[in-house]
Amino acid sequence: MPPEAARFPDRLWRVRQSLLTDDLEALLFLDMRNIRYLTGFTGSDGVFLLERHQSLLMVDGRYTTQAGMEARGIGVFQYREKLAGIAEVIADKAMRAVGFEAAALSFETYGKLKEKVPATNLRPLGEELVNIRAIKDAGEVALLRTAATMASRALIATRELIRPGMEENEVALELEYRMRQNGSTGASFPIIVAAGANSALPHATPGTRKLAPGDALVIDYGAVVAGYHSDETCTFVLGEASGRFTEVYEIVKTAHDRALAAVKAGVTCAEIDHLTRDCIEQAGLGRFFSHGTGHGVGLDVHEPPRIAPSSQAVLAAGMVVTIEPGVYLPGEWGIRIEDMVLVREHDCEVLTGTPKNLTIL
Amino acid sequence: MPPEAARFPDRLWRVRQSLLTDDLEALLFLDMRNIRYLTGFTGSDGVFLLERHQSLLMVDGRYTTQAGMEARGIGVFQYREKLAGIAEVIADKAMRAVGFEAAALSFETYGKLKEKVPATNLRPLGEELVNIRAIKDAGEVALLRTAATMASRALIATRELIRPGMEENEVALELEYRMRQNGSTGASFPIIVAAGANSALPHATPGTRKLAPGDALVIDYGAVVAGYHSDETCTFVLGEASGRFTEVYEIVKTAHDRALAAVKAGVTCAEIDHLTRDCIEQAGLGRFFSHGTGHGVGLDVHEPPRIAPSSQAVLAAGMVVTIEPGVYLPGEWGIRIEDMVLVREHDCEVLTGTPKNLTIL
Repeated sequence: MPPEAARFPDRLWRVRQSLLTDDLEALLFLDMRNIRYLTGFTGSDGVFLLERHQSLLMVDGRYTTQAGMEARGIGVFQYREKLAGIAEVIADKAMRAVGFEAAALSFETYGKLKEKVPATNLRPLGEELVNIRAIKDAGEVALLRTAATMASRALIATRELIRPGMEENEVALELEYRMRQNGSTGASFPIIVAAGANSALPHATPGTRKLAPGDALVIDYGAVVAGYHSDETCTFVLGEASGRFTEVYEIVKTAHDRALAAVKAGVTCAEIDHLTRDCIEQAGLGRFFSHGTGHGVGLDVHEPPRIAPSSQAVLAAGMVVTIEPGVYLPGEWGIRIEDMVLVREHDCEVLTGTPKNLTIL
Repeated sequence: MPPEAARFPDRLWRVRQSLLTDDLEALLFLDMRNIRYLTGFTGSDGVFLLERHQSLLMVDGRYTTQAGMEARGIGVFQYREKLAGIAEVIADKAMRAVGFEAAALSFETYGKLKEKVPATNLRPLGEELVNIRAIKDAGEVALLRTAATMASRALIATRELIRPGMEENEVALELEYRMRQNGSTGASFPIIVAAGANSALPHATPGTRKLAPGDALVIDYGAVVAGYHSDETCTFVLGEASGRFTEVYEIVKTAHDRALAAVKAGVTCAEIDHLTRDCIEQAGLGRFFSHGTGHGVGLDVHEPPRIAPSSQAVLAAGMVVTIEPGVYLPGEWGIRIEDMVLVREHDCEVLTGTPKNLTIL
């Protein structure tokens, strides 16, 4: 792991190389995750202006001290009103062309900013930075590993409480409570706890349905540590698993394991997706696997690369991705098995910590 | 309270009256809170197209069934990809001019949509709908009252646990846990628990600081019920309050009570702000009251009207607003006292349930 302070200059260097083209004088970052990635600033609001030889973090009065402490070596500018602050800096430096994060600025705010700096060409940037973020450095991997461990520990403790009669809601609450007790700043997304027929809905919201003997129970969840998310799914059974359930579980588990065995630098994401999909299709269940095989994870819970049939991405060492095949039988039950893994040169390391063999609660 | 089903046609009528001008054929809503307000649909993604004589809720396959059940009397259209879906509907109807929520669409997405419907004039709408939302109907007031009661009950239970040595973090977690046990879908915003000198920061984030005897303890928090937020702040003292603290507490309490006594339909928000500010300024503490007096609350935790010196808004019956004066002595402690109230013709009703007399824990 490089020393803390060394990471940010390296990231700024990479962004300047790839995004700060000759025709632009500066880049304006507005997405708080990207600002955190580039500067270390963890506040909830601000703007980051990156020029060729300097950079400026703009914040309101709540964050001036914090910005100075967190964003080492970067100038801090305090504004009263954000757009006026940006306009003042751009006008002061008489900038003619500035790239901006078009996905992080509303059409309304863009219009107001444009009015304030009519002489400056505001040029939309694409998704380049999230692509840069796809490859994690050692410090990021350490945070993702910590988040995954924290989450799995909480799930293993919560599993002890699960019994028929409990509501999906309660399971989700107890799990989040334990993750936060372990030091997570929250759940990495609204936890999915789906029992019985609800487990056949890949995006179910936990409700008041009570767990019953024989229910399948899908739990999709994650912790957050210093802004980095974990993502894992376990499918359990209450009481006893039917023969059909056990059979399909083994198919999904085989699909998952085959993908895991294939993940390494240089393999295409489409190939990985094909491995899980083929396995499930061979079993005649292809039409019940209704989503992609996985996605990158980091400061966002969903970020590049996408692991899906149409994906153009290629795995590279340092990417952290999920592998999450599933089979969903409408009205009956669903099974999803998900791990979060670190791509290495010749293999991958599983970061999530809950065993994936069929577990009866 | 009007029957559930009667609310939405009334809201649609009001929006058509005020926003669907003669030069527009339809309005495109993209903000999920506004879509919930207009249709009853509670999903996490979708688009609502309102025409003069009909309306269409567009969702992806996850939400087709739910949209049909929740949005009674409104057509449902299922898309595979959101922008393509919008474009298909707009092109099918050969619409020439459509208003859209410019604050809810990114510049990037706007560009992609515009490319798909080059012949349609996309006209940005302003903040009109959030202004319509400022006046709550009886059903909304009932939800806000329930959220406030749920939150106060959880705080009163959590207060019993608070003792020196506990971390701010832990207090926040225990409070959120109890709100959710009571039925809240979550905290209405990240709970503020700020002890000792941290209480002097109006927007403090709870951390690992341990509570100590004599600490001031500011807790700003709320529950969420069916999308409606509550908002309340209590300031407690651990062990014993100093004479100076007690004195300032009474000043803030007087400011808060005076505003509460003045809140009714027809009074300007600037007048209410002036009442609290004047009271604190008279005590020579004006420069330590660094924010506005309050704001509207509803589907958003901050929505119109703003209660601040420069506010142009006038209170109307049915508005639900906070009254939250504060005094913050840097490096020492801060005091904020906040209630959420319903504006009525001749007075107001306090919806939040925790007593605001100085309480020693």
